[in-house]
Amino acid sequence: MSELPPQTTSQSLRAQIRTGAFTGNTSGHAPGHVQCNIVILPKAWAGDFLRFCQLNPKPCPLVASGQPGDPGLPGLGDIDIRTDVPRYRIYRDGALAEEVTDIQALWQDDLVTFALGCSFSFEEALMADGLEVRNIAEGVNVPMYRSTIACAEAGPFRGNMVVSMRPFLAADAIRAVQICTRFPSVHGAPVHLGDPALIGIEELDAPDYGDAVTMKPDELPVFWACGVTPQVALEQARPPLCITHSPGCMLVTDLPNSRLAIL
Amino acid sequence: MSELPPQTTSQSLRAQIRTGAFTGNTSGHAPGHVQCNIVILPKAWAGDFLRFCQLNPKPCPLVASGQPGDPGLPGLGDIDIRTDVPRYRIYRDGALAEEVTDIQALWQDDLVTFALGCSFSFEEALMADGLEVRNIAEGVNVPMYRSTIACAEAGPFRGNMVVSMRPFLAADAIRAVQICTRFPSVHGAPVHLGDPALIGIEELDAPDYGDAVTMKPDELPVFWACGVTPQVALEQARPPLCITHSPGCMLVTDLPNSRLAIL
Repeated sequence: MSELPPQTTSQSLRAQIRTGAFTGNTSGHAPGHVQCNIVILPKAWAGDFLRFCQLNPKPCPLVASGQPGDPGLPGLGDIDIRTDVPRYRIYRDGALAEEVTDIQALWQDDLVTFALGCSFSFEEALMADGLEVRNIAEGVNVPMYRSTIACAEAGPFRGNMVVSMRPFLAADAIRAVQICTRFPSVHGAPVHLGDPALIGIEELDAPDYGDAVTMKPDELPVFWACGVTPQVALEQARPPLCITHSPGCMLVTDLPNSRLAIL
Repeated sequence: MSELPPQTTSQSLRAQIRTGAFTGNTSGHAPGHVQCNIVILPKAWAGDFLRFCQLNPKPCPLVASGQPGDPGLPGLGDIDIRTDVPRYRIYRDGALAEEVTDIQALWQDDLVTFALGCSFSFEEALMADGLEVRNIAEGVNVPMYRSTIACAEAGPFRGNMVVSMRPFLAADAIRAVQICTRFPSVHGAPVHLGDPALIGIEELDAPDYGDAVTMKPDELPVFWACGVTPQVALEQARPPLCITHSPGCMLVTDLPNSRLAIL
């Protein structure tokens, strides 16, 4: 990939995040730029996690990864992963231990950073095409559900896929499949549409994560593989240390969303 | 488009059709080659019909058209449209008058030939990807329905879209959208999926054309724009003379199906 053009908005936002002036939700900020889910693991666990991502590219689409001990993420901009995420979650033995805004004190020479694609990119592409993204229109978090779709296992990493849901009329659902197919590194095409019970979801109004959204008459629920899936796998695997972004508080990169389009 | 490679199968089949030795259904013959719906109209009606096709590209995807009075179809092979379709239907004032296997006696210097894409091409692409196309698996004609989706009007040509239906599990329906999106000149992506009533179809078991097919548990009906749509528009427009292929008895061309893929 050629050198990125300077992206003032993403760079200035990241500068504020780096100093601790911005510690909130990044949704809607630095529009047009890729935001990423972050997973940081000790090297001894990183190989299996990488394989888990490669086996499950729809929920775990790898956009970039770092060298062990290196806080940079080549290709995504001038990034120091120890300071450039607004808010981090620290997991110890698979359980949430604390939430912090800086991990400089926790950094180790064996830590490996993974940056995974996030739905913000494809939501922006859907809206640019004139589709309404219900969770954004209603100003809430997207509803997410633990499905019965099993992920492929890699070492200690296993679990079912978490899916996000956005309602659409059928013709718009077909258009959404086309648009999202262009973006495999941000979850790609939906994994299911129609009857939620077929993937183990009993009640759309009671999501496992996020908020319920309005289903209008004649709409179908459309389900995408979700970046919360690796968190479920991490809870199963129970590594001694794992650091992630806090939900909604993503790594903002300089990469234009259009760079993720394969077509 | 560069010169076509010689395609023995399509050429030898067309040679049999030309002599009258083959007058039947072309489904499954000369696999890998584009087959076309044919509409032949007097020049005075051809302009409006061409505009109807351009306004309604999903049901009426134009693959090629001839010069007035010229029985050839450039780009599709060595074709004489007066002899190279197994069976023709002759419409006078919008009503079916007769069915013949040769139109040499009917040919006029002002006749214009239109070749429109046909679902055989995308069905082949779906099966090549491992999907079951139910009408083929059950050895029947695809079920077709008059929907309430209005076509754009062009002069005397108007009417609602006829749609064909193939059932799929949701994940396969999503895959079918991706595959068919590559082939806009053979109807492209589906126009609807899920609840048939939303496009005015009351009873899947009672198609307006073709045969009903089995819907298995957990399957969604998936609807494509159908090449029968122009026949409905021709019945509305009532041109003094119109010649079409007889359903299922298509023009077999030398064009490989892969040439229609836009990607």
